[in-house]
Amino acid sequence: MADTTLSPEEREQGVRFSPKFDAAGLLTAVVVDSATLAVLVVGHMNREALEATLASGKVHFWSRSRGALWMKGETSGNVLCVEAVLVDCDQDALVIRATPAGPTCHTGAGSCFYRRVVLQEEGPVLVKVST
Amino acid sequence: MADTTLSPEEREQGVRFSPKFDAAGLLTAVVVDSATLAVLVVGHMNREALEATLASGKVHFWSRSRGALWMKGETSGNVLCVEAVLVDCDQDALVIRATPAGPTCHTGAGSCFYRRVVLQEEGPVLVKVST
Repeated sequence: MADTTLSPEEREQGVRFSPKFDAAGLLTAVVVDSATLAVLVVGHMNREALEATLASGKVHFWSRSRGALWMKGETSGNVLCVEAVLVDCDQDALVIRATPAGPTCHTGAGSCFYRRVVLQEEGPVLVKVST
Repeated sequence: MADTTLSPEEREQGVRFSPKFDAAGLLTAVVVDSATLAVLVVGHMNREALEATLASGKVHFWSRSRGALWMKGETSGNVLCVEAVLVDCDQDALVIRATPAGPTCHTGAGSCFYRRVVLQEEGPVLVKVST
């Protein structure tokens, strides 16, 4: 899908999907709940994960720690069903609107973003929020 | 702020903010509009950008292409005023709820995610959406 011959204007304004993978071959993918718009999880996709996501309609990531392709929910069953895929101006990040089949975070939280950073005199601390 | 001595449980469930920077010294930061929850921009923060963001209340990023710290809106005036900062389970990504002073994208769009990927027989194409 990539085409490095795109001009900057074509990349930003054009109709051609030409994802720009970084030096490690990855894009950033932000998955949001299509109903609530809450950010559920942030992951990374290589070309294989992106193609699997588009072909299957279920979010796939590349695990940097395990060096492996994985479908979100392949073990838990809590897959993320793709409703829409948006790409940013320079085509190096995606926002995926999805319907979650269950809690997205492996901790059981609805979203991986279940703590807020609160500044206190002694430094920042984390406070749990509902997700 | 980092503390690599945290146990996995402390990292996921604890109150200590211990951001986990990647091999390049970066976190992923997703900025959402605090009013609409729309994703505005995805960027990267090194420790300096994170500290500047928390201290100033205005989103700062590390530009990978320019190798420089920058405050979003420093040229355009369209700063992003921080309302809340959320961190994910393994503390390597942030969601920042912010109030934008103007269009976030350098193209003039409200959000950098102004195109949707639409699958067609000949392959994926991009279709503009309102932001």
